[in-house]
Amino acid sequence: MEYLYPDDSYTLHTDAYELTMMQTYWQEGIADRKAVFEVFFREMPFDNGYAIYAGLDHLIQYIQNLHFSTTDIDYLRTTAMFDDQFLDYLATFKFQGNVRSMVEGEIVFNHEPLVQIEGNLLECQLVETAILNIINFQIMVATKAARIKSVVGNQAVMEFGSRRAQEFDAALWGTRAAYVGGFDATSNVRAGKLFGIPISGTHAHSLVQTYRNDYDAFKAYAQTHRDCVFLVDTYDTLKSGVPSAIKIADEFGNQINFIGIRIDSGDMAYLSKQARKMLDEAGYPNAKIFASNDLDETTIQNLLMQGAKIDTWGVGTKLITSYDQPTLGAVYKIVSIEDDQGQMVDTIKLSNNTSKMSTPGKHQVWRITREADGKSEGDYVTLVHEDPRDQESLYMFDPNNPFLNKTVHGFIAEPLLHDIFINGELVYNEPSLDEIRALRADHLEALWDEYKRDLNPQIYPVDLSQECYDHKLLTIREVHDYVNQLKK
Amino acid sequence: MEYLYPDDSYTLHTDAYELTMMQTYWQEGIADRKAVFEVFFREMPFDNGYAIYAGLDHLIQYIQNLHFSTTDIDYLRTTAMFDDQFLDYLATFKFQGNVRSMVEGEIVFNHEPLVQIEGNLLECQLVETAILNIINFQIMVATKAARIKSVVGNQAVMEFGSRRAQEFDAALWGTRAAYVGGFDATSNVRAGKLFGIPISGTHAHSLVQTYRNDYDAFKAYAQTHRDCVFLVDTYDTLKSGVPSAIKIADEFGNQINFIGIRIDSGDMAYLSKQARKMLDEAGYPNAKIFASNDLDETTIQNLLMQGAKIDTWGVGTKLITSYDQPTLGAVYKIVSIEDDQGQMVDTIKLSNNTSKMSTPGKHQVWRITREADGKSEGDYVTLVHEDPRDQESLYMFDPNNPFLNKTVHGFIAEPLLHDIFINGELVYNEPSLDEIRALRADHLEALWDEYKRDLNPQIYPVDLSQECYDHKLLTIREVHDYVNQLKK
Repeated sequence: MEYLYPDDSYTLHTDAYELTMMQTYWQEGIADRKAVFEVFFREMPFDNGYAIYAGLDHLIQYIQNLHFSTTDIDYLRTTAMFDDQFLDYLATFKFQGNVRSMVEGEIVFNHEPLVQIEGNLLECQLVETAILNIINFQIMVATKAARIKSVVGNQAVMEFGSRRAQEFDAALWGTRAAYVGGFDATSNVRAGKLFGIPISGTHAHSLVQTYRNDYDAFKAYAQTHRDCVFLVDTYDTLKSGVPSAIKIADEFGNQINFIGIRIDSGDMAYLSKQARKMLDEAGYPNAKIFASNDLDETTIQNLLMQGAKIDTWGVGTKLITSYDQPTLGAVYKIVSIEDDQGQMVDTIKLSNNTSKMSTPGKHQVWRITREADGKSEGDYVTLVHEDPRDQESLYMFDPNNPFLNKTVHGFIAEPLLHDIFINGELVYNEPSLDEIRALRADHLEALWDEYKRDLNPQIYPVDLSQECYDHKLLTIREVHDYVNQLKK
Repeated sequence: MEYLYPDDSYTLHTDAYELTMMQTYWQEGIADRKAVFEVFFREMPFDNGYAIYAGLDHLIQYIQNLHFSTTDIDYLRTTAMFDDQFLDYLATFKFQGNVRSMVEGEIVFNHEPLVQIEGNLLECQLVETAILNIINFQIMVATKAARIKSVVGNQAVMEFGSRRAQEFDAALWGTRAAYVGGFDATSNVRAGKLFGIPISGTHAHSLVQTYRNDYDAFKAYAQTHRDCVFLVDTYDTLKSGVPSAIKIADEFGNQINFIGIRIDSGDMAYLSKQARKMLDEAGYPNAKIFASNDLDETTIQNLLMQGAKIDTWGVGTKLITSYDQPTLGAVYKIVSIEDDQGQMVDTIKLSNNTSKMSTPGKHQVWRITREADGKSEGDYVTLVHEDPRDQESLYMFDPNNPFLNKTVHGFIAEPLLHDIFINGELVYNEPSLDEIRALRADHLEALWDEYKRDLNPQIYPVDLSQECYDHKLLTIREVHDYVNQLKK
């Protein structure tokens, strides 16, 4: 299709209402007012006890490239929704705000700010859609990957889902998020090229169909590759596939590295046990059995319980589409806005559903751990001027049920929101993927096992400071007063 | 993050095993052998009676840009998986195959080829991952969109899901697929720019929070935009939101185009009925009520049954993530391969599950309709040399149950697979999105209502020609003979 304009910027990758609101602020002369927006999610993904943060790398890329191209402006002019002077202003737009964020690989929870944007009203509004578009997906995949990895222990898990992903970006960024969450390799070669993730893959059924029998296909593969994993289920796994793989391994000896076989269909428990026996009897006790076929943490757990002899797992659809919950539902809410006197005023979005209410004010999130053994006590959300490190003891309570409370002594408080951009300039030095993976492993280690069960985990405390809590109550009362006064 | 290489081509957006198989074919001297692969899916999405084909536009873009960049080759060299001479060959690679496909907007069904790639083994293998990555997502969204549109009739439905989509491409291509499927507008401005889809959006809760009351916020909006839809549920829909909208409409009169109000939370049935009454009583019977809040075909149907007074629907999460089934599961199977005598030999992938078996041979799909009234009789899959237009009558039977059969007279047979690329050259003149939408509407019209129910529809016949059926049986027998001979 002939497109109307070249796809030369991602700046219009935003909802139309962000731009119409920007025009209102600009024309009403309040474009320079400072605002603070925060991203948070309400429900734990998959009812898991924790989530893994991912998406910051793409978010940084997006913010760094924000500018309206000439064709962006040309297009906006054709919509007749925007004023010419406003469009002239957009042509000069530059993101000059502050961005704070959790770091990738961090263990995160619902009802705590993950990203904080502070800037003028216009720039804060513009970036909402893209930030949520990134975060809502990548956190899901990273978390799902961590759940799957937790089930297989030290066994390798590979991301094989590109063909089932929701378009190209989901395949690419999804496999990166899976690697952040603990996966070991990907089939997506582009992800290998860009991110340095190890790539994995040998051959498909089509190779066997091309040679019209397993033996000739495996032989052709062995003649042209040193590392060999033979896919054995094209015609008949136990009668043709496995025997042919063994025959080739015998014939080629040290000429190839016979890593093992892959089973992609059928009764994986039965087939893997039979195949294991055949491989062992043929003198290949170290040959690995790879499995791939609509796997996720539940099917893998079941196969392991049935004693399936599987060493390495290829996971596709269920991971890369976040199949059982395709989005996180994170939201982006204004928490503070400059008034006409130049004062910052904190603000709330009310709802009958308390979990849908935002928490007014600009925040920091603190991870509270025990000094003695580094084990987790909970997360503690404060207003930004508070510093729990100044306190000897910390009174922590559940904001939805203050009867649940404890006082913590001998604790370490670590701030989780880090400066990423200051006045539009990138100030964050991104860690490598290896460092991100190490951080995830370390921080998961600090979490009590009770939070890490994949079914019915304990709920990790995400508490508000007393000041933050009182402030929220007060802000709610102010809104009620406003609404009640209208009624008269 | 500093990437290892620039992201300068999508050619490595493929599974590693495609490239390793390519190396085998190339080194074994069979790179020039012709092959035919076909894409099909096994189960109807959402148990719907039909699916809507979408994705061809992105597929064309992908094929047109296929080439290995210098950095692609540089990266592949570092993996130590590939031979230098093979990499030198890849640097000169050009797609020179044929692509046939359904056209976008076409009504399609399971077990019929949607895309057919014919070329040498290497080029056929390379493109598998990306084609499935595109098709598996876009068909789901187009089909979901058609289901939703069928429920609302002539009311407008808008795609509002970018923030919940699985990364950028899903937001962009997803909203295009929704438009193909029958949606009327999008909130994604980039989709408006590139594809010419009408964009829609006015303001968010943050506008109201910025002004700290509905009235001032609506007033600011009305001063800066002609078309006004006021979001009324930030603080209190009926006490503050709707009365403020009416007040602004009264005060601004003809200065604005008061399109209506939007409700994004709460009991939509109750609130919309109350709001309707208030708008009518205030003299705004033509003001529309927009609704948006985790809607899909089921919740919309329920709201309509409860007499909700909603005129226009904004649908996000459930559509753009294809929430109740996040992927189609389409596969790409080799159906024919040239042997060492230069003869094309048809091939099959066996499975205990008959629906997982491919159908050997290169095919055409024919839409059979009654000459008299254009109504659908079924789809008829033939080997490519057959032409049902040569026949007076057509014997049609269910390949999974040949007892179900009929003989059709006075029919029209229309081929559905069209030439897109011939010898690597684009020969297809893509229709506009308007033409695609018109085709979808026409072809849906030809379908009996029984196939269009959104719950428990009749199953549309997708039949094999007698020759195609016999050929499949024969090919299965040949594979069984091969496996049995191995047993001895």
